Amino acid sequence: MGQDTPSRSDARGSPALLALDWGTSSLRAFLLSDTGDVVNARHAQRGILHLPAPAQAGGFEQAFAEIARDWLTQWPALQVVAAGMVGSAQGWKEAPYARCPVDARALAAQGVRVRSGLGPEVLIAPGVLFDVADHSPDVMRGEEIQIAGALAARPDWAERACVVLPGTHSKWARIEDGRIQSFATYMTGELYAVLRNHSILGRLMPSDAAAESSEAEAAFAVGLHAARDSRPGDLTRQLFATRTLGLTRRLPSETLADHLSGLLIGHELVSGLAASRAMLEAGAPILLIGDSALCGRYAHALATFGAPAHAQLDNTAPRGLWEFARAAGLLD
Amino acid sequence: MGQDTPSRSDARGSPALLALDWGTSSLRAFLLSDTGDVVNARHAQRGILHLPAPAQAGGFEQAFAEIARDWLTQWPALQVVAAGMVGSAQGWKEAPYARCPVDARALAAQGVRVRSGLGPEVLIAPGVLFDVADHSPDVMRGEEIQIAGALAARPDWAERACVVLPGTHSKWARIEDGRIQSFATYMTGELYAVLRNHSILGRLMPSDAAAESSEAEAAFAVGLHAARDSRPGDLTRQLFATRTLGLTRRLPSETLADHLSGLLIGHELVSGLAASRAMLEAGAPILLIGDSALCGRYAHALATFGAPAHAQLDNTAPRGLWEFARAAGLLD
Repeated sequence: MGQDTPSRSDARGSPALLALDWGTSSLRAFLLSDTGDVVNARHAQRGILHLPAPAQAGGFEQAFAEIARDWLTQWPALQVVAAGMVGSAQGWKEAPYARCPVDARALAAQGVRVRSGLGPEVLIAPGVLFDVADHSPDVMRGEEIQIAGALAARPDWAERACVVLPGTHSKWARIEDGRIQSFATYMTGELYAVLRNHSILGRLMPSDAAAESSEAEAAFAVGLHAARDSRPGDLTRQLFATRTLGLTRRLPSETLADHLSGLLIGHELVSGLAASRAMLEAGAPILLIGDSALCGRYAHALATFGAPAHAQLDNTAPRGLWEFARAAGLLD
Repeated sequence: MGQDTPSRSDARGSPALLALDWGTSSLRAFLLSDTGDVVNARHAQRGILHLPAPAQAGGFEQAFAEIARDWLTQWPALQVVAAGMVGSAQGWKEAPYARCPVDARALAAQGVRVRSGLGPEVLIAPGVLFDVADHSPDVMRGEEIQIAGALAARPDWAERACVVLPGTHSKWARIEDGRIQSFATYMTGELYAVLRNHSILGRLMPSDAAAESSEAEAAFAVGLHAARDSRPGDLTRQLFATRTLGLTRRLPSETLADHLSGLLIGHELVSGLAASRAMLEAGAPILLIGDSALCGRYAHALATFGAPAHAQLDNTAPRGLWEFARAAGLLD
């Protein structure tokens, strides 16, 4: 289990909410005040694929107890909410997908309760399904809460925004009237990882050497520009260039991973920006949410493509969980 | 080592050429008559990554002796040629890339000789490099010999053709005036394998169940059509649909691998056909070379895209090696 990270003094009075951001690989727990401020935070490598015991043998209970037992002993009346893969079919209890359009209220109305052995009920947020004719269906689980947290911060964003959450499975969500109207998933991060670790492209990439930052930036830019100039279907051809640019020594081998990253992020941007064009032309801001280093990479790429991000937000999940709890009437 | 596969009676007289098609995973050896007919063939799982001993410790010599010692004992005057990864930097002896445009004569002129412990010299074919301004460089090694074999069969093909070699790294080569003028590589097969074996997409694909063939064809078609309708950058989004179409039970899980295949082959075709448009409009035939089941899949996809293949050729490497040997003056 990780360490306590008290962001503010615990002396401010009893917390109002225990909020769990419970994904595939990690579990984050937050104590929030009745105004939505984080007063304490913990994390553990206890994602739903890394439970201390099998799910059937009480693995969720045990992980929950490990991270929150003392808090619940101290404040037995705490309300508890959770979001992320904990609500999937492989989770603690399945919270079936809510359909677009959704906001925090719709999520709260479709939350699912599970009684914990420690006493309190846990309200688990549903994931979100986008499923309309002439589109492939799409799903998210966890990002809808991060989005709710971001929109709570600024009423003008809730009105209209294009929210991008870079990652293993990047999400592009279109927000209007306070609700997620539609979204799309790009496998950018996972594709980068499997190509680097399991394909011929990784063989030319040294695992130990770091590139000069200017050289790495240049290789990233070569990938971005190739993506920007691409025509339909070109990605699997352009991927091979990560190899041939190394073989022909056009790019130093230490920068090939940056080239691959630029190519994949660039393709995501080309497609995501085209799908959001009408919104962006009408003035919707682009919001980036997630890991700050990765968001920085996206911000740089967006600027290169002439579509700069308006804001870069770090962890909006605690605030989103608070909005979810409030919409469920748990904070009245 | 594999079995002898005598295609014709050995009684026709002494063979003229021992030809090795030596790739990453397997080694194929052919005895050819002085008219280029295969009189005997063997194969062994002795690709350059599966040698019986390390390369430095004579692994190439040993694999060569295993597969051909008795032939060379019987016919000590046999000429010997080889093509494929055996000529790469990790091969028996590096045969540096020849530059486009190339034909069998150019390949022969840039072949590299290695003296074998069994007696004869082996003439190793170079790979081919396509490297012009405003293009990513591209490389092939082995396919140039298959192409030479196909073009030898029909003078009209040598004049002008679009040759497609599906596989781990599919090649699209543009042929004019008997020479490979340019080509491009698509990582289709490798991408399929790494996504199936190492990404979240594989998790929903049962390893043991085979789909009904009509259902598999339908899923393949869904992938193809998505590719045909795609806009730049869409692939990494469409890949995620292989998951969501399974999650939402639009496609049976047994057919998700076919959907992925249709999507990736479709993207390759969209890009490859666009890059070859001028040639195809001028009447160049599309030739498919390679594994017949895979070529069948491509032929079906090409027909769906309104660009039917004119011919589907199986193993053209022996004939290509014979053309290479003849161009090198080894058969005079």
